[in-house]
Amino acid sequence: MNQKASPATGTVPCSGRQYRFASRMAKTPKSFIREILKVTENPQIISFAGGLPNPGLIDVDGIARAAASVLAQDGRSALQYSTTEGYLPLRRYIADRYKKRLGLVISPDEILITNGSQQCLDLLGKVLVNPGDHVAIERPGYLGAIQAFSLYEPVFHPILLHEDGPDMAQFAHEIERHAIRFFYGVPNSQNPSGITYSEDRRREIGKLLAGRDTLVIEDDAYGELSFDGIALPSLRTFLPDQTIITGSFSKILAPGMRLGWVVAPQQVMDQLVVAKQASDLHSNYLSQRIAYEYLLHEDIDKRIEGIREAYKQQCGLMISLIEEMMPDSVTCTHPKGGMFVWMTLPEKISSMEVFERAIRDQVAVLPGTPFYVDGGGNTNLRINFSNATPEKIRAGIGRLSRVIRTLERE
Amino acid sequence: MNQKASPATGTVPCSGRQYRFASRMAKTPKSFIREILKVTENPQIISFAGGLPNPGLIDVDGIARAAASVLAQDGRSALQYSTTEGYLPLRRYIADRYKKRLGLVISPDEILITNGSQQCLDLLGKVLVNPGDHVAIERPGYLGAIQAFSLYEPVFHPILLHEDGPDMAQFAHEIERHAIRFFYGVPNSQNPSGITYSEDRRREIGKLLAGRDTLVIEDDAYGELSFDGIALPSLRTFLPDQTIITGSFSKILAPGMRLGWVVAPQQVMDQLVVAKQASDLHSNYLSQRIAYEYLLHEDIDKRIEGIREAYKQQCGLMISLIEEMMPDSVTCTHPKGGMFVWMTLPEKISSMEVFERAIRDQVAVLPGTPFYVDGGGNTNLRINFSNATPEKIRAGIGRLSRVIRTLERE
Repeated sequence: MNQKASPATGTVPCSGRQYRFASRMAKTPKSFIREILKVTENPQIISFAGGLPNPGLIDVDGIARAAASVLAQDGRSALQYSTTEGYLPLRRYIADRYKKRLGLVISPDEILITNGSQQCLDLLGKVLVNPGDHVAIERPGYLGAIQAFSLYEPVFHPILLHEDGPDMAQFAHEIERHAIRFFYGVPNSQNPSGITYSEDRRREIGKLLAGRDTLVIEDDAYGELSFDGIALPSLRTFLPDQTIITGSFSKILAPGMRLGWVVAPQQVMDQLVVAKQASDLHSNYLSQRIAYEYLLHEDIDKRIEGIREAYKQQCGLMISLIEEMMPDSVTCTHPKGGMFVWMTLPEKISSMEVFERAIRDQVAVLPGTPFYVDGGGNTNLRINFSNATPEKIRAGIGRLSRVIRTLERE
Repeated sequence: MNQKASPATGTVPCSGRQYRFASRMAKTPKSFIREILKVTENPQIISFAGGLPNPGLIDVDGIARAAASVLAQDGRSALQYSTTEGYLPLRRYIADRYKKRLGLVISPDEILITNGSQQCLDLLGKVLVNPGDHVAIERPGYLGAIQAFSLYEPVFHPILLHEDGPDMAQFAHEIERHAIRFFYGVPNSQNPSGITYSEDRRREIGKLLAGRDTLVIEDDAYGELSFDGIALPSLRTFLPDQTIITGSFSKILAPGMRLGWVVAPQQVMDQLVVAKQASDLHSNYLSQRIAYEYLLHEDIDKRIEGIREAYKQQCGLMISLIEEMMPDSVTCTHPKGGMFVWMTLPEKISSMEVFERAIRDQVAVLPGTPFYVDGGGNTNLRINFSNATPEKIRAGIGRLSRVIRTLERE
């Protein structure tokens, strides 16, 4: 820009120019996540705020072997442009894994490789949502999905979550009242609440939506991270031609490789591929090749087993410390997998205030409010247990409980 | 899906379900590029259709060294989530390079790392375009940009291109008649025409747009590939707070790493970062780290020099063969860089027919029609010279000239 830093303040003065932005931008909430990823770059801060996998569980050596092998054996191809759908052997691997884990019969043609599963949400918004369309989400709902869909200007209908899944009476009520384009949910170890839908609740959702125009977007980022290794049935089992599944290698391989995927019925997939091509031609091909090489030659199941075991320990420790150190007025969910515990504070304590005070004490948590599109979450905190050592969990929950006890006394 | 392949035909029968899609999808043209990238997977076909860099010029060994080094030295960090804006040292490198090459003073804060420069166009569409907004593009215009912007439903105003840039009388006319949000152009070695704007034309564009609300999106995918190494001034030189630049490592390093960037004034950048975060959180961090390691320790300038020299030879050979073998009624542009020659056929010959017959003779070209939003291009072909050996150029232009001579006689 043609501006000089002001010597007095060191800041860059604002250009006089006023820029006009598309109206969709005003409807898109800014995210704490971005600010928090910056905060977590400060090693002094104990962060329970992000959704980062434990870096100690990333198989750096195995990925380095896979990268070296791909580049040595087929580097020119791995570094060239590729097809929009993604590397076919990788899509076949994903399809086979669905068959083995969940008994789902999925064609590789129904799978598109994306830049992490976040991109699936953007592509689905592009393909499915006209401004003003009705969309049902969970309450609380995943912030990244709220952001991604908001760009396409839907009307959100948040469905209250219980420990075993969505409130079915409210769900049925919304379905009767509005032409809901899709329901977006995270049935396994939900973000932010940590809850998992029971098998009964999944069947009931199937019954409620079968034969209707409403689609389901099942975000399954955490399905592989159930502590006991049990995989509950996908909603696709009950709604085969209505269910879209999004998946991710971020939690089981490495988030920095930005590899996710979307599974969709062929007609929907055809549109997703057009949207993907317009959005960025195709996903990082080198990463796709490295991931496939890794899956072929390393033991991903043993890795996942190790991640599950570690997160189970970390989650268990966190919950026991919350129950031990926090006032009795504080409650939390008891997740069966995933990365997050959802804490509920007494009504008089504001989660934003906890957030701000905790940051001063060098512990970062996520207040509940951004997970609600209709207000709410004022007394909730999302607490991440995956990216912390036992020592940090002890120290961080200690600091947090002091903040909450102090606020309770004020 | 719960469908079985029909044993008689081997095809999957269509689900009875009708899916409804967002109306923006109906406005987004499907691309030949996707189909053509599939065609080019058949090694029998000589392809002048894609926009692929010459894989022989990709420094696989250097990239393998950089990858090994990053993963050995800082693998856990390189494989973790990162910030939306992109790796700061890489953004600093890009800013420094603009200073050196073009004399532009750009802050790293004005740079966002994207999944190839195609994603810049999607993000800019998101941030800038309301349905019905007026957008000026080149005629012929880059297909990927037409696709990306179409999702945001603008009204396109194509400005005729001459050998030295846009038709200024028409440009001024459109600017007077409509509230043009932005002009999108490729001033260096344009795709598809191969033309480069003269310095005079750049100044005139600056004069025309200065002080107006219209922004400029300068797509500079090919600026580093000018055969003589001369860098003409960026439009940002003349319109500092109105110009957005998109850049790419695809043509100078490796497209499979999907690394591009957008340079924008701070207020626009703030919105782009929100859009990027909602779209896919951040770009592939492993690739960013590998690219930076490469730029730090390998000689990118020598590499670029080699690419320029090779493409200059390939382009020169292609043009001399076209002039030697084609009928006199066929003309073509004489690019000063980039990857494409733009051919004009006599009026009676349809480029679609040439395309179809040429494929049968195992040579792939791109017909001109998809580069026009208002009809046109029926007698044009885009011919790529970067991804072909001299032998393939000889054989391919030979086959193509036989197809055209045959059609001319019919």
